Amino acid sequence: MKETYIEDFEAWKKDFTFSVDIEVRFSETDMFGHLNNTVPFVYFEQARIGLMNELDIMGNAMSKEAENIPVVADLQCDFLGQIFFGDTVKMYVKYAKIGGSSADIHYMGTVNGEVKLTGRGALVQINSKTGKPVKWSDSQLQLVQ
Amino acid sequence: MKETYIEDFEAWKKDFTFSVDIEVRFSETDMFGHLNNTVPFVYFEQARIGLMNELDIMGNAMSKEAENIPVVADLQCDFLGQIFFGDTVKMYVKYAKIGGSSADIHYMGTVNGEVKLTGRGALVQINSKTGKPVKWSDSQLQLVQ
Amino acid sequence: MKETYIEDFEAWKKDFTFSVDIEVRFSETDMFGHLNNTVPFVYFEQARIGLMNELDIMGNAMSKEAENIPVVADLQCDFLGQIFFGDTVKMYVKYAKIGGSSADIHYMGTVNGEVKLTGRGALVQINSKTGKPVKWSDSQLQLVQ
Amino acid sequence: MKETYIEDFEAWKKDFTFSVDIEVRFSETDMFGHLNNTVPFVYFEQARIGLMNELDIMGNAMSKEAENIPVVADLQCDFLGQIFFGDTVKMYVKYAKIGGSSADIHYMGTVNGEVKLTGRGALVQINSKTGKPVKWSDSQLQLVQ
Repeated sequence: MKETYIEDFEAWKKDFTFSVDIEVRFSETDMFGHLNNTVPFVYFEQARIGLMNELDIMGNAMSKEAENIPVVADLQCDFLGQIFFGDTVKMYVKYAKIGGSSADIHYMGTVNGEVKLTGRGALVQINSKTGKPVKWSDSQLQLVQ
Repeated sequence: MKETYIEDFEAWKKDFTFSVDIEVRFSETDMFGHLNNTVPFVYFEQARIGLMNELDIMGNAMSKEAENIPVVADLQCDFLGQIFFGDTVKMYVKYAKIGGSSADIHYMGTVNGEVKLTGRGALVQINSKTGKPVKWSDSQLQLVQ
Repeated sequence: MKETYIEDFEAWKKDFTFSVDIEVRFSETDMFGHLNNTVPFVYFEQARIGLMNELDIMGNAMSKEAENIPVVADLQCDFLGQIFFGDTVKMYVKYAKIGGSSADIHYMGTVNGEVKLTGRGALVQINSKTGKPVKWSDSQLQLVQ
Repeated sequence: MKETYIEDFEAWKKDFTFSVDIEVRFSETDMFGHLNNTVPFVYFEQARIGLMNELDIMGNAMSKEAENIPVVADLQCDFLGQIFFGDTVKMYVKYAKIGGSSADIHYMGTVNGEVKLTGRGALVQINSKTGKPVKWSDSQLQLVQ
């Protein structure tokens, strides 16, 4: 396993408890006949927000009136196998590490139980007006743990 | 010509004076090997906003602080020929008719001079808070004519 | 009702029997805070292919090896109300009329029972090599009726 | 600089010689009012293919008939600053390292000279039928150097 964000793959894999099912759309394929490489990041976002909603961690952050919003600091994806139209991707997501105002979020996408995508990315909570980082509140921290 | 929004095709075609050049992206193709049918509407929007900027008609409408914003009321597109990766689409756009608070906007996309796409759609100016239609101002009307 | 493809709205509405549920993705919103106008056509395609799969009408058409493929001849969409992040769109689709090698397909998108989108578009079956229209077979016609 | 793929930022920056200019599309923004985090990967692909065309390195690889095609093995992006509608992104791309059948490609996106995005990703040349890696030919290697 060359992915530096995964120490023990089997342990890492078992640690996911939340996932969303995503059917590959025809418009997400490209002329090579498979899922275009830009699309997994759309799936990452869908799964990530699904988890944040499930945990109720961001309050009204996903609205125009939000004071504090989560922004993506970095993203990476490893493509372990091609994904095709007709596939349903089970997109797993978890909080892997929590910082003061940031979080490291990990992703795994499987098709019929086979891992096709792994990934990670840091998220930072910022003030929507100033753009400055905002520390997680105690209640947010409790929801994540 | 079956398109009901075009009376005299040659006259309609000559009436365009503004266009933007758009290179087809690889990610916009699908597994049929051509431009996916959902993408021309992205090109329509790019050309439409290009024209609105050129005319300086919408003021700060394309910003979060805008009081009045243009919203799409309907859209249609006729696909006259397939478009492929490597093609550059010359996307023409014009105001075809102006109403009180709306406008009918027409589109034509050519590749190497051959018409591949025609289309139209109504735009309505609304108040971003109330969602209610807002009449075009005299200065806006002057800019369009 | 200004939509020329709808004669009697209540009858037209009742005539739909197939739909797919689509959750609005955050990446599908734009800075106006609502679903971008280019996205409903992606939903149309997802619902249309869902229906074609349900009817098993296109055989292996959605694969690279397909001899005959369905291509979009035209598309239109009427935006009756704004759609927002957090909404689930129930996307209805039906075959409204069958031609020799084409079909007119109608669409209706609702959120919490309220109609937000209506639309239609013609589909033509073509030979993937020659690009020429291919008449529907008897078995295809039976599946649609 | 936390990005592990950049040793000396100023040297890394100066090493880019190829770029494409990309205007941010309205449909690429999200309700937070900035470029959605999934879009830079679309820009990466556009720049990468632009460079491959410039070098004429992939022959007919970007066609349906291609024997050997380049596929993305991994991708990562660091978001150093927000990008907004109205911005033009100068998207730089370079071959940073060449392996037997793969290449490490680096990316840098600037707006008005300010670095907003950095990234990298490995590309592998595979046979389109077998999916197996294919060594770069001597002529391909010459074109990249």
